[in-house]
Amino acid sequence: MQSIDRVQLESCARQIADAGRELGALGWTPATSSNFSMRLDAGHAAVTISGRDKGRLDIDDIMVVDLEGRAVGTDARPSAETALHTQLYRRFPGAGAVLHTHSRTQTVASRLFAGRGVIRLEGWELQKAIAGTTTHESVLDVPVFPNAQDMSVLVRAVDAWLDAGKPLHGYLIDGHGIYTWGRDMPETRRHLEAFEFLLGCELDLLRLRGESGLQRPF
Amino acid sequence: MQSIDRVQLESCARQIADAGRELGALGWTPATSSNFSMRLDAGHAAVTISGRDKGRLDIDDIMVVDLEGRAVGTDARPSAETALHTQLYRRFPGAGAVLHTHSRTQTVASRLFAGRGVIRLEGWELQKAIAGTTTHESVLDVPVFPNAQDMSVLVRAVDAWLDAGKPLHGYLIDGHGIYTWGRDMPETRRHLEAFEFLLGCELDLLRLRGESGLQRPF
Amino acid sequence: MQSIDRVQLESCARQIADAGRELGALGWTPATSSNFSMRLDAGHAAVTISGRDKGRLDIDDIMVVDLEGRAVGTDARPSAETALHTQLYRRFPGAGAVLHTHSRTQTVASRLFAGRGVIRLEGWELQKAIAGTTTHESVLDVPVFPNAQDMSVLVRAVDAWLDAGKPLHGYLIDGHGIYTWGRDMPETRRHLEAFEFLLGCELDLLRLRGESGLQRPF
Amino acid sequence: MQSIDRVQLESCARQIADAGRELGALGWTPATSSNFSMRLDAGHAAVTISGRDKGRLDIDDIMVVDLEGRAVGTDARPSAETALHTQLYRRFPGAGAVLHTHSRTQTVASRLFAGRGVIRLEGWELQKAIAGTTTHESVLDVPVFPNAQDMSVLVRAVDAWLDAGKPLHGYLIDGHGIYTWGRDMPETRRHLEAFEFLLGCELDLLRLRGESGLQRPF
Repeated sequence: MQSIDRVQLESCARQIADAGRELGALGWTPATSSNFSMRLDAGHAAVTISGRDKGRLDIDDIMVVDLEGRAVGTDARPSAETALHTQLYRRFPGAGAVLHTHSRTQTVASRLFAGRGVIRLEGWELQKAIAGTTTHESVLDVPVFPNAQDMSVLVRAVDAWLDAGKPLHGYLIDGHGIYTWGRDMPETRRHLEAFEFLLGCELDLLRLRGESGLQRPF
Repeated sequence: MQSIDRVQLESCARQIADAGRELGALGWTPATSSNFSMRLDAGHAAVTISGRDKGRLDIDDIMVVDLEGRAVGTDARPSAETALHTQLYRRFPGAGAVLHTHSRTQTVASRLFAGRGVIRLEGWELQKAIAGTTTHESVLDVPVFPNAQDMSVLVRAVDAWLDAGKPLHGYLIDGHGIYTWGRDMPETRRHLEAFEFLLGCELDLLRLRGESGLQRPF
Repeated sequence: MQSIDRVQLESCARQIADAGRELGALGWTPATSSNFSMRLDAGHAAVTISGRDKGRLDIDDIMVVDLEGRAVGTDARPSAETALHTQLYRRFPGAGAVLHTHSRTQTVASRLFAGRGVIRLEGWELQKAIAGTTTHESVLDVPVFPNAQDMSVLVRAVDAWLDAGKPLHGYLIDGHGIYTWGRDMPETRRHLEAFEFLLGCELDLLRLRGESGLQRPF
Repeated sequence: MQSIDRVQLESCARQIADAGRELGALGWTPATSSNFSMRLDAGHAAVTISGRDKGRLDIDDIMVVDLEGRAVGTDARPSAETALHTQLYRRFPGAGAVLHTHSRTQTVASRLFAGRGVIRLEGWELQKAIAGTTTHESVLDVPVFPNAQDMSVLVRAVDAWLDAGKPLHGYLIDGHGIYTWGRDMPETRRHLEAFEFLLGCELDLLRLRGESGLQRPF
């Protein structure tokens, strides 16, 4: 692990632990679900070790992997979904952090829209919190991929979406939660907060408008 | 900036930062949305600088503008919606503070009632928390203006409402959030809490009574 | 005020302030609504002064009244609804504390059931949290009285219910909130928590079962 | 009580008090409901004393019972439902902790599904938080037993389920709350968080899909 910058690693570990504590307090990481990471350099990332309580993360709960998801300089086992994190660092060279959470809103939205495969968000001012969006008069599509215990199936689903040239800032997995990313931790937190808020608003509108809300054409 | 009273500015900046922290903890300012201001004197206001995390505001995140929304004594860029704040200080000489937040309840209510253009509140004891209201047997109309990225469109919509002589204590923008104001920060906080509560109650009643609740005549 | 025990008064004021802070943090006292009191002796009670922020009560925000609601030893104005507190101390010699809060659940339930005039709770284990209830196989009726700005109208409504010999542990006012009481502050807090919980459960069941839930006979 | 290891007892009491404070802060133990325990050795458990505020538990609020639920070395009265805790330690030799909470979600779900007698959870990633579950493509049945003030009736209902050879990781009592357990306190907390989350998701889906959601065959 001589190639890893210790200061950089400690700074990332601290940012990850802070995010874990604050997202845990919001109830978005129930029952040791969720995992977080930050890019260290062109070939490495810091990720949470599997099974730790995400609301009480310590610097010792963070480990280094290469961008194929292999542990570097440790025998610890990375989070099961590490392959989804490293895929994002490979495909988005500008991505500096990835957050996967598991809030009730995210999970319920994923189940409800799994049949469609996508949640279309439009007309919300907060869409502008997603990097590159400058007006609420835009469309923000959040795909919902089928769940799979085999990570390579999920990796292929994400690759297929990206290879089709469609914009992607975050995605849901059916019955599972959200993945989102950004330039650095503050931007990634902002993206996560925006998706949580927008999915919550969408579910509220559905509750208020009734089943017919689901049938509106788009 | 020699004309600005430093003590007054620091006091206002502290009140704005406190409000930001407390409203942020309630989840009403997601993803760096929301902005806050206080009147400094007949011609100036202190407003939040654009893009800062409203839950972690510091005194350095506050700047001075004149009532046309132009920065005074700084190169910082004020919040995009500053024109809506300064309009309120111009039209309401007694207004000492303006709060714009973006809670899920406010945003969902704005979408649901955008077609009507107004939410009519009546029969709630908490209407008495709005300055000048002495009984629940009154009517409190909250307009919902269409969203626009061009602030001058929004300014004209608010002017039109006021020029028609209709009472106004707060308004929603479609898909966006609420603006409310008051004599000073405590009264403005009280107004904001009352609107949040009343909009939440109204949505709950709609959920419980079903779609027919929306069709009740008024 | 020579007849009032200072130590007793300070103890009550502290208990009231603690309750206010904790209930305020739960969001049950929005926009300076709500008021609290404790019995001092056979003829006096300590009550919150009108218009104070109930989440930030200090000992100075509490005053003494006799059981007709007249200020004792101060020029301060007691909370508008003091007459409802003193009525309860007169009618229930064992009552040591009265809490009036204004949560969204309490307020929405009061509006929804105002037409019936009563919410019947049955089959909930937590009914046993109400003093004197030993089984969930009992019935707990919570009356909903019409709102009135004239307190004497409300006092008469409560008197009529009690004079009819019906049990009473708490009541709602339409569009307003709940009043509950108990032997001392801990029992009163337990009653308040139980009512809030049970009303919330009842509303949830209505949301899940739909409008037909309201028509079930009782 | 000479046979009880004091260090072990103090460690368990501290873990129980910590759980109580944290679960109380989530609102899952309203009005002194709920009770908690940990196994001390093959024949004893530490349980909460009846009627204490579960959010403010102290080491003195914990007592020792044998696995028939009889107080050991104290005159204090154990929680009324102690028989349900000791049954679990007898039937599950690996169980090290039992938590009974009373959240609104748990209570509403128990009422809604009481007629069926079971809530079937499937397709949720978080089912994997339950020990021994390795895929979301499994079925997790949570029985709902009828409420009874006579604990022996409840004990027989749980015995009957287990004697039928059906898996059991937690159960609800109609109108009451949940019981869950695990190897130690962290695993039991994880199980409780997972059940609370999954029941909440299930209720949300029902709200969004309407009554028909309840009629889906299984």
